[in-house]
Amino acid sequence: MRAAFFEGPRSIEITDRPDPVIVSPTDAVVRVVLSCVCGSDLWYYRGESPHALGPIGHEFIGVVEQVGAEVSGVASGDFVVAPFTYCDGTCAHCRAGVTSQCVAGGSFGNHGIDGGQGEAVRVPLASSTLVLVPGSGHSDETMRSLLTLSDVMCAGHHAAVSAGVTRDSVVAVVGDGAVGLCAVIAARRLGAARIIALSRNPARQQIARSFGATDIIAERGDAATEAILELTHGVGVDAALECVGTGQSVATALAIARPGSTVGVVGAPHGVDVPIIDVIVYRNIGLRGGVAPARIYIPELLDDVLYGRINPGRVFDFETDLKDIVKAYDAMDERRAIKSLVRVGTL
Amino acid sequence: MRAAFFEGPRSIEITDRPDPVIVSPTDAVVRVVLSCVCGSDLWYYRGESPHALGPIGHEFIGVVEQVGAEVSGVASGDFVVAPFTYCDGTCAHCRAGVTSQCVAGGSFGNHGIDGGQGEAVRVPLASSTLVLVPGSGHSDETMRSLLTLSDVMCAGHHAAVSAGVTRDSVVAVVGDGAVGLCAVIAARRLGAARIIALSRNPARQQIARSFGATDIIAERGDAATEAILELTHGVGVDAALECVGTGQSVATALAIARPGSTVGVVGAPHGVDVPIIDVIVYRNIGLRGGVAPARIYIPELLDDVLYGRINPGRVFDFETDLKDIVKAYDAMDERRAIKSLVRVGTL
Repeated sequence: MRAAFFEGPRSIEITDRPDPVIVSPTDAVVRVVLSCVCGSDLWYYRGESPHALGPIGHEFIGVVEQVGAEVSGVASGDFVVAPFTYCDGTCAHCRAGVTSQCVAGGSFGNHGIDGGQGEAVRVPLASSTLVLVPGSGHSDETMRSLLTLSDVMCAGHHAAVSAGVTRDSVVAVVGDGAVGLCAVIAARRLGAARIIALSRNPARQQIARSFGATDIIAERGDAATEAILELTHGVGVDAALECVGTGQSVATALAIARPGSTVGVVGAPHGVDVPIIDVIVYRNIGLRGGVAPARIYIPELLDDVLYGRINPGRVFDFETDLKDIVKAYDAMDERRAIKSLVRVGTL
Repeated sequence: MRAAFFEGPRSIEITDRPDPVIVSPTDAVVRVVLSCVCGSDLWYYRGESPHALGPIGHEFIGVVEQVGAEVSGVASGDFVVAPFTYCDGTCAHCRAGVTSQCVAGGSFGNHGIDGGQGEAVRVPLASSTLVLVPGSGHSDETMRSLLTLSDVMCAGHHAAVSAGVTRDSVVAVVGDGAVGLCAVIAARRLGAARIIALSRNPARQQIARSFGATDIIAERGDAATEAILELTHGVGVDAALECVGTGQSVATALAIARPGSTVGVVGAPHGVDVPIIDVIVYRNIGLRGGVAPARIYIPELLDDVLYGRINPGRVFDFETDLKDIVKAYDAMDERRAIKSLVRVGTL
């Protein structure tokens, strides 16, 4: 099979690799239909964080080709969504709903596990990892939205859940990337009364509005904070969702959060520290979030995708095929694309 | 009246000051019956943090002597608990239950407001600040427990509430000071199944057990973490309550917290930062807490004190009177006392 292979910063090649096979009786082999590039893939692509040379990509949907003897719940021919981390579903962390911390788990495209940016993937712990997509003949629009369930839609949802968004909340989403835009959907879905999206990009503003944003703030930094405090009569928002992961975005999220609220953190700010006494103690602001337990969230979000109630696939504004995957990386690296879709196979 | 007066590090004097009077129609004047010394009073006493020269102390219970024309709910002769911060009860933060962030609020013994370590206090915003204690003829044991509602029992409760302690939680309390011991009570009260208290002091261990601790860990640092992970089969606790406020205590609380849990933070660690990516993102650990909204918590805790269901007053293991208040500070400064009671007047 062909698969993307990381050969060092700015160097990704499509290489021929052995077709994956069942190694453990709990494995499945999935033939990839759609894959995509994650904002976090850019970290190693740009050389900002280390990554082993090897297969990459952790988001994919596809068709089960083969299952091991102990796999149940999915069978050959099934159309499935793969969460970006695999999990056993039985450890204490999985049972507590934190599948992203599964003691037997891991992520695709890491530590010898096939990446999603390839024609096929060996999926460990398939019974507890893969989510069956019912029905057939899904439209391309639905397919694109299903692909977001692999990661970004779940990440946006995790930000909203972690921040305690509930009916009538006033929410601000810091970040207009794919995760931030999905967080707008998540906040709307959880009943937020007002959703303030921070974006200075007209195309992203438009998507944010179509996803449920009621207000757009184009300012950044202190000016953004002032604008949001003015919108909220000086109180701050009930839930600030940090979906960027820079020092400035974290500072903004903390500054606009009202006392007693929790900032939902799903951006991954390298080297950004929070001073406990200033934020948590003196301002009563909490922080919560992290790597999304996608496997837990997929079933409930799946229904909304299938019924067309949410349409997160609209975050894909660039597409290519596997052989041109570097273009998918470059479009995001150069900020020409929000998120790049990679067409790999057919249903 | 006589009141303690801060004259600089290690220098507290009992001075004669004018009797407080009603300045605003929303004021009350309260004659202090019991006061005490807070762990946070030691910060300025030791010269570790600044404090204006002037009146000090923020915990007291007493009898209303006089009320302004607009005060309702409490009247002259009423026995009351004063939360350590006053509040208007009507601002957005108060309505959201975060009275400690009231826009019109402040704390006693700060910014020109009388301290609780004196014979009388002018209480601003008295209607929404003071909590009436029903009944009469309260035992000395009950009186001591009522005094803890002014701050430490509410702080311990805030740690437990912030960490989401609920029925059957496995809880660890980091800190065997007055707040930590009250956090044990709070965890028990919220239905925790197991309460692990970290303490190497036999007397404090005994109080922790009497308050509901099921396990005592005498180790510190990495050894404490290992012991607690062993007790919890490697999973970590459902709720770690950080009630000390040092770099080591924060590190321990974070290390023993299970993924997906929230560390309740009520210690005030000066200069301790949390790396977002390592704690929140990669481990899915949240942080929440801060200055306790005591006014919100007092009513529910008050019933438990009056009915004898909780007995937080047992944290007072040293007592003196106002003229010897320096002894109260020194007993805590030298760690001879958990918390020092100061008898000021009579009911």
